Amino acid sequence: GPLKEVLFFPVDITCVEHLLRAGEALPNSCPCPLPHGQETSFTRLLRHLLSASTSLDLCIFAFSNQSLSRAVLLLQARGVVVRVVTDTSYMAISGSQISTLRRAGVNVRHDMGAVYMHHKFAVVDGRLLITGSLNWTTTAIQCNKENMLCPEQNFHQAEHDLWRSRHGGEQVLE
Amino acid sequence: GPLKEVLFFPVDITCVEHLLRAGEALPNSCPCPLPHGQETSFTRLLRHLLSASTSLDLCIFAFSNQSLSRAVLLLQARGVVVRVVTDTSYMAISGSQISTLRRAGVNVRHDMGAVYMHHKFAVVDGRLLITGSLNWTTTAIQCNKENMLCPEQNFHQAEHDLWRSRHGGEQVLE
Ligand SMILES: [Zn+2]
Ligand SMILES: [Zn+2]
Repeated sequence: GPLKEVLFFPVDITCVEHLLRAGEALPNSCPCPLPHGQETSFTRLLRHLLSASTSLDLCIFAFSNQSLSRAVLLLQARGVVVRVVTDTSYMAISGSQISTLRRAGVNVRHDMGAVYMHHKFAVVDGRLLITGSLNWTTTAIQCNKENMLCPEQNFHQAEHDLWRSRHGGEQVLE
Repeated sequence: GPLKEVLFFPVDITCVEHLLRAGEALPNSCPCPLPHGQETSFTRLLRHLLSASTSLDLCIFAFSNQSLSRAVLLLQARGVVVRVVTDTSYMAISGSQISTLRRAGVNVRHDMGAVYMHHKFAVVDGRLLITGSLNWTTTAIQCNKENMLCPEQNFHQAEHDLWRSRHGGEQVLE
């Protein structure tokens, strides 16, 4: 069928340092108290995002999860072209990662063309779509029943449309 | 590609009486003041739902839109097996259609196994999945930037799992 993969949440939190510090010299065993070595919907999500080699396009209503923010910053540092569209009203919520991303030079637009920019999707390398009900918040990941589909196809046109048109951002501030 | 159809919102409101009163004797021209004869993402969504001939399974976080409620009631009246899982906390919101559906005999479960049952998807005849960011509220349809994917495949197993397992409802009240 067309759906190769569906990610369900919530998941129990596990250590993701091995994903976010790939390439760094890590101690043989991580000293943190979280469970290690487990694959979850969240590690799958991180792996998909970190597979980006050229571009990552995000339209995310609410973005406050720190591990996801670290993943985006890691991609940006690797030279991946990262673009983010987010919702105006939710940009300033407590714990929002948007200003952190901006400070790191990520191209962020906030959308003022609708009551809510309620999308929650990522396009990896114009190829892999990751979309569903999940906002990028720790509550959503660890507490809510959520789903994400990860269909793969050529999204370059859609990506372009989403970025340029009413479905993406219309306003650039900052 | 795997995605035959993506529905984007918001849409301008148009008359949907021809869809919701199919089979009834309607006057030649509808007297209501809304635009007529236009296809939108919302009429597409209604047409997909109304194509159900045997079953309609819904996991919907927030459900207050009256036209969508009328569509569900129409299917129930036609003998389609309708099952709804919704969120406990949002069931009682102003304008929620859940009690209306219950009064009409629709099998409704509300989910108590997570902070939010945040899914927003429908499975039509175990065949067509309609899923995305869109809650079934008038604000989401008419004001927010939202997307829904409509992949077609055999979902009977997933449907069963969703209904029985942690991804669907765990609790039946009432
Ligand atoms: Zn660790
Ligand atoms: Zn009319």
